[in-house]
Amino acid sequence: MSNELADKVIALAKRRGFIYPSSEIYGGLANTYDYGPRGVELLRNLKNYWWDYFVRFREEIYGLETSVLMNPKVWEASGHTQNFADSLIECKACHTRYRADHLIEDFTAAKAEGKTETEMEKIITGKKIPCPNCQTFSWTPIRRFNLLFQTQIGIVPEAQSLTYLRGETAQGMFVDFKQVLDTVAPRLPFGLAQSGKVYRNEITKGKGVFRTLEFDLAEFEYYVKAAEWEQWFNYWKLEVEKFGLSLGIAKDHLKWRSHGKEELAHYSKRTEDLEYQFPWGYKEWFAIAYRTDYDLKNHMEKSGVDLRYTDRDTGEKFIPHVIEPTFGLSRSLLVILMESYHEETGEKPRTVLRLQPFLAPYKVAVFPLLKNKPDLVVKARTIFAALLNQYPTVWDDRGNIGKRYYAQDEIGTPFCLTVDFDTLKDDTVTVRDRDTARQERISIDKILDYLRVHLK
Amino acid sequence: MSNELADKVIALAKRRGFIYPSSEIYGGLANTYDYGPRGVELLRNLKNYWWDYFVRFREEIYGLETSVLMNPKVWEASGHTQNFADSLIECKACHTRYRADHLIEDFTAAKAEGKTETEMEKIITGKKIPCPNCQTFSWTPIRRFNLLFQTQIGIVPEAQSLTYLRGETAQGMFVDFKQVLDTVAPRLPFGLAQSGKVYRNEITKGKGVFRTLEFDLAEFEYYVKAAEWEQWFNYWKLEVEKFGLSLGIAKDHLKWRSHGKEELAHYSKRTEDLEYQFPWGYKEWFAIAYRTDYDLKNHMEKSGVDLRYTDRDTGEKFIPHVIEPTFGLSRSLLVILMESYHEETGEKPRTVLRLQPFLAPYKVAVFPLLKNKPDLVVKARTIFAALLNQYPTVWDDRGNIGKRYYAQDEIGTPFCLTVDFDTLKDDTVTVRDRDTARQERISIDKILDYLRVHLK
Repeated sequence: MSNELADKVIALAKRRGFIYPSSEIYGGLANTYDYGPRGVELLRNLKNYWWDYFVRFREEIYGLETSVLMNPKVWEASGHTQNFADSLIECKACHTRYRADHLIEDFTAAKAEGKTETEMEKIITGKKIPCPNCQTFSWTPIRRFNLLFQTQIGIVPEAQSLTYLRGETAQGMFVDFKQVLDTVAPRLPFGLAQSGKVYRNEITKGKGVFRTLEFDLAEFEYYVKAAEWEQWFNYWKLEVEKFGLSLGIAKDHLKWRSHGKEELAHYSKRTEDLEYQFPWGYKEWFAIAYRTDYDLKNHMEKSGVDLRYTDRDTGEKFIPHVIEPTFGLSRSLLVILMESYHEETGEKPRTVLRLQPFLAPYKVAVFPLLKNKPDLVVKARTIFAALLNQYPTVWDDRGNIGKRYYAQDEIGTPFCLTVDFDTLKDDTVTVRDRDTARQERISIDKILDYLRVHLK
Repeated sequence: MSNELADKVIALAKRRGFIYPSSEIYGGLANTYDYGPRGVELLRNLKNYWWDYFVRFREEIYGLETSVLMNPKVWEASGHTQNFADSLIECKACHTRYRADHLIEDFTAAKAEGKTETEMEKIITGKKIPCPNCQTFSWTPIRRFNLLFQTQIGIVPEAQSLTYLRGETAQGMFVDFKQVLDTVAPRLPFGLAQSGKVYRNEITKGKGVFRTLEFDLAEFEYYVKAAEWEQWFNYWKLEVEKFGLSLGIAKDHLKWRSHGKEELAHYSKRTEDLEYQFPWGYKEWFAIAYRTDYDLKNHMEKSGVDLRYTDRDTGEKFIPHVIEPTFGLSRSLLVILMESYHEETGEKPRTVLRLQPFLAPYKVAVFPLLKNKPDLVVKARTIFAALLNQYPTVWDDRGNIGKRYYAQDEIGTPFCLTVDFDTLKDDTVTVRDRDTARQERISIDKILDYLRVHLK
């Protein structure tokens, strides 16, 4: 997909009520977005699907929802107050700031994530990378800034205390580990999962919901015996990819990439990213990390609370190791929209979102052929009301039928039903398929059966 | 329900994995809670039910998900930076701070919300209300403090800008009003809904998830013609109550209360609270407010963007008025747990959560009679695996059957299936009903039919 097509997808997402710039009437707020009526349904379908897939219909993965505001000691113990930082560089001429790794990557098309400040400064100097804004080559040294948003608990100034908005959901699954052991007594291997908002004070702009200040992250910590980590890493790597494919993403748009030693996060011994082919190159979509016993060990030391697991067969006590699959769900929306976007040329040019039916905001649309013929409208309303109880259904009576098909194609509605004058005679409607644009006649009492079969 | 029973409910919620104090291994963080494996399922069931009830299966209410971090001008225009405040008073002897209205309400058992500072100081002095902590009567004057959490966007200190964590979701539905008009072209009356986290810097402690720093709020703005506000207010008042009852709450535990003139929020001309009979008195559960055209008018003035609605029949342009039903979903969890908690005495004493089946974390539990008999275990696992694909199902093989019933009753699982030696002969299992504790034998191939009928 070209950058031009990416712009079209982002424009469609706005025009059709998927994704709006946030606070737009006040000039917006950089790197924040709102989900419109269609976007929120797509996002909800995705979030619920993820939850069902990994939590609800699996025996050994348990859900959690931990708070965004945690005791600040959590982030000190986890290393985030020290290590969760971006390396920024500033142009001395125009004072624009960049992430040093992005500056290098955009110029050289090679990965720079995880390189040290000294290494990156050497590359920037060596390649004489100019400022993308003003073309000057004159940089400040690189400085590191922490990405955690800060806030104060307490409203009386002299009694406020600093805390952070969480930068990942994972810490909740470590900090509550003992509470879960005490209340649901799981056996290894088991997982603790959560899906929710995280906050990162990013400075990079543009590219829609690719990188935003707040976003939906879903992840789970899968606790295993130390000796078994590699086997489970490989198991979950396959499952993560399977999940990605089940969203309708083509396998040849995906690529696994191993983090080099210098790139690994402070807690990880092995990390692989499942990258998607964005118009701006292959970039992380999902990831899987082997976090060792780093987090539980750290929290045990710093809190003084025993976080060891007791094997019920042998009585042995130990700290389990962790495999962590991570899924950026806001970013997934962009991946899904890009992947399902198709422009068809020819006699009847159209744009169609070939969303998997389970992801589509509406499963079916109902139209009366003409909105000024009460007989047609009443009949269509009856069908609409009956369907609305069963499936997310949308009503449309504006403009001609061709225009309505066009609009439903752009939001990915799998089926459109039209009530016309024949309906009044023989109780049949036209069903039109989004993907093939083919139409057929079915009788009204077969509609539910038809949808049940075709929406599977 | 007495305060003693309330404490038991909160203890059960912790013991059985519904609600944990947040960051507990670090001593917690006041007024924050985490949802454990059972609590998160209950909360998700509630959130999805709300969404389906008011958004997904209604034609004229559209969902949104707006960001928590918005342009700060939103909160200036909405009046929140001025008016969204608590009135605090401090004991001069022990320096404990209280919300002045709570101090009065706890002492006099009369409502104080909305009274002016002068009025409250007069009451406190007149009644000589002592400090609940040290019993001294010696107070500072009342001071007002804003409840919005503040944070800084941008990580370079000299380029940071102040913003807030949202204190309500409503502003998103006003600020995006025009984008919705432009993209989905709704006709009056219509609603914009959202469900998500909000943040309030509260100082009041205790009472579980009754009042917390972050909580799930679901609300919608229902846009109507000015002349029709009263009719729609009454319509939604009935619907709000109907929704509350559908969660299994007894009608005589609920009471509507109108806000007096002095108590009304700065944007409202009429507000009524649906109060639940908490052990500490009738307190707000849901609410419905007539916000007039205050918000849209304000945002139109302050942003300079035309937010008027155009009537497609008459061409008339005007600002709609707003009815706003509000649902505290985190608080609902407490209401639901309290309402469904029952202690049965007699021969077999037990505690049972009589949750509506659609809210229960698990719909069914599967037990092998004995865990050391492979024949029983294999058979039970087969049934378990088949059910897990259809319903949230839990496996339990610990302790004797009585203990397992006891545990499932405490988390509200409607049905338990036991595989015993007869099962191996005749392919039947024992089904045990949570509410009646009655058992019956059914054949394995009838289990799904049985659940379909009884879980309706």
